[in-house]
Amino acid sequence: MSQEFTSRDKDYSKWYNDIVEKADLAEHSAVRGCMVIKPYGYSIWEKMQQALDKMFKDTGHVNAYFPLFIPKSFFSKEASHVEGFAKECAIVTHYRLKNDENGNGVIVDPDAKLEEELIIRPTSETIIWNTYKGWIQSYRDLPLLINQWANVVRWEMRTRLFLRTAEFLWQEGHTAHATAEEAIVETEKMLNVYADFVENWMALPVLKGVKTPNERFAGAIETYCIEALMQDGKALQAGTSHFLGQNFAKAFDVKFAAKDGKLDHVWATSWGVSTRLMGALIMAHSDDQGLVVPPKLAPLHVVIVPIYKTDEQLKQISDVAAGIKKNLEAKGLSVKYDDRDHLRPGFKFAEYEFKGVPVRIAIGGRDIENGTVEVARRDTKTKETVKQTELIAKVEQLMVDIQQNLYKQALDRRTAGTHKADTYDDFKRILDNKGGFIYAHWDGTAETEQKIKEETKATIRCIPLDNKQEEGNCIYSGKPSKQRVVFARAY
Amino acid sequence: MSQEFTSRDKDYSKWYNDIVEKADLAEHSAVRGCMVIKPYGYSIWEKMQQALDKMFKDTGHVNAYFPLFIPKSFFSKEASHVEGFAKECAIVTHYRLKNDENGNGVIVDPDAKLEEELIIRPTSETIIWNTYKGWIQSYRDLPLLINQWANVVRWEMRTRLFLRTAEFLWQEGHTAHATAEEAIVETEKMLNVYADFVENWMALPVLKGVKTPNERFAGAIETYCIEALMQDGKALQAGTSHFLGQNFAKAFDVKFAAKDGKLDHVWATSWGVSTRLMGALIMAHSDDQGLVVPPKLAPLHVVIVPIYKTDEQLKQISDVAAGIKKNLEAKGLSVKYDDRDHLRPGFKFAEYEFKGVPVRIAIGGRDIENGTVEVARRDTKTKETVKQTELIAKVEQLMVDIQQNLYKQALDRRTAGTHKADTYDDFKRILDNKGGFIYAHWDGTAETEQKIKEETKATIRCIPLDNKQEEGNCIYSGKPSKQRVVFARAY
Repeated sequence: MSQEFTSRDKDYSKWYNDIVEKADLAEHSAVRGCMVIKPYGYSIWEKMQQALDKMFKDTGHVNAYFPLFIPKSFFSKEASHVEGFAKECAIVTHYRLKNDENGNGVIVDPDAKLEEELIIRPTSETIIWNTYKGWIQSYRDLPLLINQWANVVRWEMRTRLFLRTAEFLWQEGHTAHATAEEAIVETEKMLNVYADFVENWMALPVLKGVKTPNERFAGAIETYCIEALMQDGKALQAGTSHFLGQNFAKAFDVKFAAKDGKLDHVWATSWGVSTRLMGALIMAHSDDQGLVVPPKLAPLHVVIVPIYKTDEQLKQISDVAAGIKKNLEAKGLSVKYDDRDHLRPGFKFAEYEFKGVPVRIAIGGRDIENGTVEVARRDTKTKETVKQTELIAKVEQLMVDIQQNLYKQALDRRTAGTHKADTYDDFKRILDNKGGFIYAHWDGTAETEQKIKEETKATIRCIPLDNKQEEGNCIYSGKPSKQRVVFARAY
Repeated sequence: MSQEFTSRDKDYSKWYNDIVEKADLAEHSAVRGCMVIKPYGYSIWEKMQQALDKMFKDTGHVNAYFPLFIPKSFFSKEASHVEGFAKECAIVTHYRLKNDENGNGVIVDPDAKLEEELIIRPTSETIIWNTYKGWIQSYRDLPLLINQWANVVRWEMRTRLFLRTAEFLWQEGHTAHATAEEAIVETEKMLNVYADFVENWMALPVLKGVKTPNERFAGAIETYCIEALMQDGKALQAGTSHFLGQNFAKAFDVKFAAKDGKLDHVWATSWGVSTRLMGALIMAHSDDQGLVVPPKLAPLHVVIVPIYKTDEQLKQISDVAAGIKKNLEAKGLSVKYDDRDHLRPGFKFAEYEFKGVPVRIAIGGRDIENGTVEVARRDTKTKETVKQTELIAKVEQLMVDIQQNLYKQALDRRTAGTHKADTYDDFKRILDNKGGFIYAHWDGTAETEQKIKEETKATIRCIPLDNKQEEGNCIYSGKPSKQRVVFARAY
């Protein structure tokens, strides 16, 4: 399997696609821009969902479900939102097919035209705030802390599996508050939940920051984000949390009576992460042998492969394997015993390595005699012989070690991939050489940001929270600057 | 709250809508035919999903995700499928909006017309079998046991919350097998999973049977179903499981090589349940005081309400309540202590009764003195005084008792609502009088079935599995019949 597989150095982009497709994570569908998430890939997404859903509930949120369709007119209600979202989208114009009279299968029935077109949600602020109008009258109805797991559609022309697809799966939180302060606290709280998840579950370090006005969500006052660095030196926005001010409450006329009886518009936040995180996860840890998944998100933690010559040997090994499987499962680990008899052990090793199973246990005839097994780590590709009596504790510890090691490796890569640039020439040289996060002074204007983007394809990923203040000069305009911001080319 | 609420006798249909809306389960959205599932309703659906998902996985299935969109041409590939599904649907024809030059907000960009229209999936057989073609080559790839949790759209003209909506949430299983026998075993296995879920979680007895050819799923060889009886004497189809034969494999050219190398088309099943189950659950147990939810699906198992005159009393009660809450939660129960101070206890009692919380605990000053609490059951509306020392065991037992009692009540109602009719006059009299399941002889023809439907609005709900064979004469045509089938008016 790994022979036909591209290495990172040779073609990073093909390497990524190879892993996604050959490790059975996802594939392109018959519908342009839409993917099929295959069972192995989906089981990782399910683990992400479960962890995030618990974190949302632990912070007081509840789930609900809002319609897939949004009336076209809703998009015109929040002026900046329409610019950002209502353009490239899937539009439902008819509600019936009929048999073609000329026998050419089915055709759209021209008599079944909708009075108002419906847009497949690209995000749900408008339909949700239109609904909240009926739910919020008084301060007693606040805060409203709601999340939705859903599919959304943005008509992308250039798509990549998980990273950019026309349809994707995500969660979108939409909260309503009595004060700006409370909404800002919520915005920051959810940014921290995302950072916690990406760092502690995905083992991927992130920068927390705010976007420049140029890069803000359409309709937001402030967009917070977490940014991660991929192995090719490009940044990936892993999650965003928006303070929406009173923009949507005003657009949909959502007011509440305060304790003193005064009416005011409600304050809003929204925040989301998507199946794009799958793309981040794949690129974060995988290597030239295939996918690497951190234990906390691995669908399968341990695979046991028998190495045998005779049926009797296989029976002995299977007995030992069954005991190990049972004991590991009792510790909450997911274990597979692969005794398929038409495949050689070496083939199986390569297959599970490619699929990123954190620990492989091989059991041979000699192991049965010695009361041992061979344990191999996916992350370091090291092997060792372990006594069967010590195996369960060993594997449990390995799950912790591998999770930590993957985080450390990713952090080391980020540290090595983070640079300072004090001149525009330096900046461009670093970008073209190795990429990465580049801390540089910026004059704070949208014009400069746009120029740098046009000339180098690098964007300001974020202004880090608690950013160090230092005097300097914009690398582009030379104008004075009080802090460095983080540039990178990005997914 | 219950004053403004319609009783079943007065207006069953309004009673149902009142519960759905006033118990915060769902509401109509701004988009015709689409509902908003509110947090309280969604939390019940989540519990259903969790239980079903575990049952699917325990029977060897995995989840995946397929596109929302289906190319129009796919519907023409399976002849009977197109008749059943491709007609009333949401059709995407364009992919871009633009600003109207006359300043009238946004309009559909006529230049962004899709070459081939996309249909929002009404069900996913076609897109999934088109995908399976790439996944199945040999018998080693079979069986393929995949489930999808998704939203689907069927353009219904007359909609009712949960029971019939344009967009609804569901799961759809799609499996592929090497033999017809294995596919039929799977079809029946999943029917039994559904029956197990509806009976043991929803506390609602079901009839298991097969549909007549008239009522089969479009494209199926055999449709199995579970049918439940609602309190108004109407039947509700709670789930279906289809044996699809080789129809979809042939339509999408999916073949596999058997062990002997011979190529054959793959055998298929599909099976699904939807948010319609929410409608069944609501109508199964609720009464003139509001919603009744069986403990296994209740978002909140126990509510504790303090009854106090002084702040000091409230403090004492709150201490006791905190201990009770902690101990009940340790048993896996969901508990709320409602100390909102602007509402009277009677108001709270009615509210939780209306929302169907299985057990209510009230604690007053006298209880503090006596070491007791008052425990009220939602299902029987009985109250008793219980010693605090015996409370936890008592409540745990109540959860079991209430679950069983609700099932027994529903079974008793079904028994009382099940009739035999030997003449067409009897049949019509029973239907108009009380409705219910009517066992009657039928001559086996589609014509008779259709005539009875036109004249009485009753349909054949199913031919029960293991149906008793008995000689008789069709109530409509008088022709000989070997068994009774089950008629009812249905949702």
